[in-house]
Amino acid sequence: MTAPGADAERLARVALSAVGEPGDPRMARLVAQLGAGEVYQRLREEADVQDLHTDLGARMAELQPARLLGQAERQGIRFVVPGDPEWPPKLVDLDAVEPLNGMSGAPVGLWVRGPGRLDELTAGAAAIVGSRSATTYGTAVAADLAAHLAGHGTTVVSGAAYGIDQAAHRGALGASGPTMAVLACGVDRAYPAAHRALLDHLAASSAVVSELPPGCAPTRLRFLSRNRLIAALTSGTVVVEAAVRSGALNTANWAHRLHRTVMGVPGPVTSAPSEGVHELVRAGTAVLVTRGDHVAELLAPAGERLLPAAVRTPPAPRDRLEPVDRRVLEAVPVVRPAPTTRLARTAGLSTDVVADGLVRLRDGGWVVEEGGGWRLARPRRQHRAT
Amino acid sequence: MTAPGADAERLARVALSAVGEPGDPRMARLVAQLGAGEVYQRLREEADVQDLHTDLGARMAELQPARLLGQAERQGIRFVVPGDPEWPPKLVDLDAVEPLNGMSGAPVGLWVRGPGRLDELTAGAAAIVGSRSATTYGTAVAADLAAHLAGHGTTVVSGAAYGIDQAAHRGALGASGPTMAVLACGVDRAYPAAHRALLDHLAASSAVVSELPPGCAPTRLRFLSRNRLIAALTSGTVVVEAAVRSGALNTANWAHRLHRTVMGVPGPVTSAPSEGVHELVRAGTAVLVTRGDHVAELLAPAGERLLPAAVRTPPAPRDRLEPVDRRVLEAVPVVRPAPTTRLARTAGLSTDVVADGLVRLRDGGWVVEEGGGWRLARPRRQHRAT
Repeated sequence: MTAPGADAERLARVALSAVGEPGDPRMARLVAQLGAGEVYQRLREEADVQDLHTDLGARMAELQPARLLGQAERQGIRFVVPGDPEWPPKLVDLDAVEPLNGMSGAPVGLWVRGPGRLDELTAGAAAIVGSRSATTYGTAVAADLAAHLAGHGTTVVSGAAYGIDQAAHRGALGASGPTMAVLACGVDRAYPAAHRALLDHLAASSAVVSELPPGCAPTRLRFLSRNRLIAALTSGTVVVEAAVRSGALNTANWAHRLHRTVMGVPGPVTSAPSEGVHELVRAGTAVLVTRGDHVAELLAPAGERLLPAAVRTPPAPRDRLEPVDRRVLEAVPVVRPAPTTRLARTAGLSTDVVADGLVRLRDGGWVVEEGGGWRLARPRRQHRAT
Repeated sequence: MTAPGADAERLARVALSAVGEPGDPRMARLVAQLGAGEVYQRLREEADVQDLHTDLGARMAELQPARLLGQAERQGIRFVVPGDPEWPPKLVDLDAVEPLNGMSGAPVGLWVRGPGRLDELTAGAAAIVGSRSATTYGTAVAADLAAHLAGHGTTVVSGAAYGIDQAAHRGALGASGPTMAVLACGVDRAYPAAHRALLDHLAASSAVVSELPPGCAPTRLRFLSRNRLIAALTSGTVVVEAAVRSGALNTANWAHRLHRTVMGVPGPVTSAPSEGVHELVRAGTAVLVTRGDHVAELLAPAGERLLPAAVRTPPAPRDRLEPVDRRVLEAVPVVRPAPTTRLARTAGLSTDVVADGLVRLRDGGWVVEEGGGWRLARPRRQHRAT
């Protein structure tokens, strides 16, 4: 990234990341319409960019994005933006999703601490989320699931909270498998403080990620916007113990909206932390899973890791595609056709690979060619509505 | 029942009940084609009634049905046959169902010990079935569910085995609610012997039922054919703990084939007795339920006992009908149209009531009039295939 244009774009996104609040749909919409550089420029000039100015213009004046980026780099933290080779292509889905809690939109960039490449870590990844106040049953099951998945090369994505989050990371680390934390605060911070060592371990071996710049504190709303990232960065979310109205159900709702596979691990009906999971299954939002095999099968491309017929549940059709085709599909817009070159940029793949993938996807009825570009062939809603 | 014709029919059915093996599809087919009296007559005359003769003719010679019936009556046991006011109309579904384990067909009659009227006991009844080797969790949940249902007037139907069966009866009795046992042996016998007091209690307060005459011993096949009765006599089956390949799953399969609602109570994924239940839910055969409310709602007629939207699962459409219409619908044949008078006899309702019900069912798209009779409008398969 040495081209001056790319640098300006990155610095603009650093600034927007610092002044905007994660999940603000106005920001995502303006960046999509005008480009990050233009939004940044207008805010700096205190021009009235719809109603964003009032909120952000003042903060923008005192901001020095190059300095912020330099400081982060000295802490071993990089800022990944769309167009970077490691930008996770599946985040584009956040621009098409219905808002939840007033939030939507892809992040302007991601702050990352750790050696893992985001595109590789998140390809086919599984989120394991659940209650802070988990039972010993719940933490044991979460750790077992994570160990199974990470042991087979599937990245486990979670927050860094007590309970299920911690158990999931612990299980994955115990299996020497990939595991990634997505935070509601800066990646230099530890929340809860007791998880400093766990986060340092994750940062040393794979990645700790946030859309908030270093130094930022967690807030209730930032947890909700963080949940949308956990759902968007993974191919499916497993909920292990979630009391009714728990944050883990918010992540499950995001995953459902994003047409990811939502999975739930049952527990005793006499256990309050299992109630939310049971309700997800009853509502048809989540598929019941009881073993790592079940999760792996639901996330696996067609033909791989199939269980015997007696214990098989049909995976969502999208999960049957080859990984490369899924990646291409994730770059195809819902409404306005985009040319192959643009899709290649979004997907982080070569134009040839994308062109081949589009032909297969067209033959499979997934996409249509229109006016020199490509768009999705039909609404991508594949799950039953809740 | 004093008409000589009715008596002859009843005695013929006593004889067929004594010599036939429960669930033998040949018997049910012949009785449906020729009538019980004709089948009995032909077997007595050692006429070759297809291949039934070889099996049954010899046994028939030494049989004295009037004496058998008299002995039973002195033991407080009655023999209920189709056409009796208390004959459960829903048993007719067994004549239309695909065989399972080579079994199918409605019973030629039911031996009953206890004051409960079968039609009243079984209307909207819930089966609660599960493992003999249940955990304390499973028996506690089964007892709670049964207490909730029976406490609200829903009859609980089960076998009389150790574990879940026993817990279900115990829970219903504890709530002073209706509960009924269906046995794989004569209703004068206790199997297991330790449940003699439980069975006597059920016989004193509601009913103990079997299609086998008094004195008959239980066999493995008789348990399987008994399971079809538990499924057919109820509007839905709840499975609480069932290891893979357990008898309770056989009952669930019958309920599924009979288009009854199949429900499963989850448990810890680390508990083997819950595995079969989880697989039923994963296969889409069973709806996950965690409380008595959930079961009541799935079995309730439209508009009754509705839970708040957040925790509601749509009941099977058939369960939305008024009870009287459901009873009429259960009498309507799948293929060959039957006249209103015959349907009234099958349903155990007056011709006027049935005629009114048929008009409502026709308007609702459930039945069609054809050649002066009525048949179902469409395949009654409403659940997803396993």
